[in-house]
Amino acid sequence: MNDLQIDELKNGYKIFQNPQGFMYGIDAVLLAEFALDAIKKGDKIFDLGTGTGIIPLLLEKVSSASHISALEIQSDYVKMASDTMEMNGLGDKISVYEGDIKKLATDKRFGKHSFNVVTSNPPYTLCNHGKKNINEPKTIARHEILCNLEDVIAGADYLLQTNGRFLMIHRPTRLAEIFYLLKKYQLEPKRMCLVQPSVNGEANLVLVEARKNGKPQLNIMKNLIVYDENNQYTDDVIKIYERLILV
Amino acid sequence: MNDLQIDELKNGYKIFQNPQGFMYGIDAVLLAEFALDAIKKGDKIFDLGTGTGIIPLLLEKVSSASHISALEIQSDYVKMASDTMEMNGLGDKISVYEGDIKKLATDKRFGKHSFNVVTSNPPYTLCNHGKKNINEPKTIARHEILCNLEDVIAGADYLLQTNGRFLMIHRPTRLAEIFYLLKKYQLEPKRMCLVQPSVNGEANLVLVEARKNGKPQLNIMKNLIVYDENNQYTDDVIKIYERLILV
Repeated sequence: MNDLQIDELKNGYKIFQNPQGFMYGIDAVLLAEFALDAIKKGDKIFDLGTGTGIIPLLLEKVSSASHISALEIQSDYVKMASDTMEMNGLGDKISVYEGDIKKLATDKRFGKHSFNVVTSNPPYTLCNHGKKNINEPKTIARHEILCNLEDVIAGADYLLQTNGRFLMIHRPTRLAEIFYLLKKYQLEPKRMCLVQPSVNGEANLVLVEARKNGKPQLNIMKNLIVYDENNQYTDDVIKIYERLILV
Repeated sequence: MNDLQIDELKNGYKIFQNPQGFMYGIDAVLLAEFALDAIKKGDKIFDLGTGTGIIPLLLEKVSSASHISALEIQSDYVKMASDTMEMNGLGDKISVYEGDIKKLATDKRFGKHSFNVVTSNPPYTLCNHGKKNINEPKTIARHEILCNLEDVIAGADYLLQTNGRFLMIHRPTRLAEIFYLLKKYQLEPKRMCLVQPSVNGEANLVLVEARKNGKPQLNIMKNLIVYDENNQYTDDVIKIYERLILV
């Protein structure tokens, strides 16, 4: 893991990233801001598949959560995320763990049903068994090689207490599977926002909030449009960055 | 059933409606047009809960289906829809049946897995057991009193052959339940369109196409906006009416 760089976030924190690897993008920003509305004072948060730790880093600054735990399976990212938290003096507030989402139930470090909020920006793409480079960190972050959608949702179910909230960003092409699995695990979809790259483009991301043992009633928010006709961020996206103190 | 009126559709057909009862609205128009893209030449279509028979009447004019069957539980509507088909000389092309969606499996009139396309504009609202007037035809058409969402989806599963298509319009608040039940019955959601009353309004209708035993991959269309800033139909809606020869 050579060639790491330290990037400065405008929220005042710094983050280790690998320019040859998986760098955080707008997905993480959108998920963090979407999650903000579901976080209450004193909440314990768990970020599943944290990568560089960007989601905890964004949420720590602006939410009133009491503590954030973050799980990551790839050792190199665990080291980067841990170093990032230390570098920002956040070792007490954000704990980064190396571990496997699929083994949460036997992982003594995390209590069952003991978190208020779970976030996840998981791999979006189905595993293609013919795919090369399946050991590449970037490939693992993007494809369902080490965990799939059901593993992530089952993990959220394991960690969340009743009325706990699960926030995820994913591809709209998989929305039916997402809702099916959420309901299978008693995580009731409560809020959804489709994200369109442009006014006339079809949605390519979806933000979903589910509540553990919640009552069925889905609130579909107005679609979020990322770029305007001049290929600049729309006001709605600028407000999202502002809310996370990133502008 | 007094006070029936005959309304002229601009597609050339006439329809019996009861101005004190349930009159067809834009929902039926949107569903018929959405269904058109899923109908192939010679298809056998089944409309579940046909009411006045508006969906078959719209589809017969512009689709290349070979035959349309239509099921309705309320006798008064069965009579109206049958009379409508006779009045238009469509008795051979559209068959209206009185019957119960919940009893399809024991109904000798309809073969299992023998239809290519099933359409439904079912009651949208959960049955409120405290609700008055639950015997009113209009209440039955709008609330899940005589059948619920699962009955409709199970009925579509019973009627459709492999790769058959199910087209439904419903409320977005129930989208998670819709997807869950569709997948439970091996009706894979393939296409979805949210309908917003206005540019800034949240979606209040959703069109869904599912394919029997289809491969998972949902195509989310651009949201359809019904009214423009001047409270006039948008060009997109006018095109839908034009395609059904209703303007």
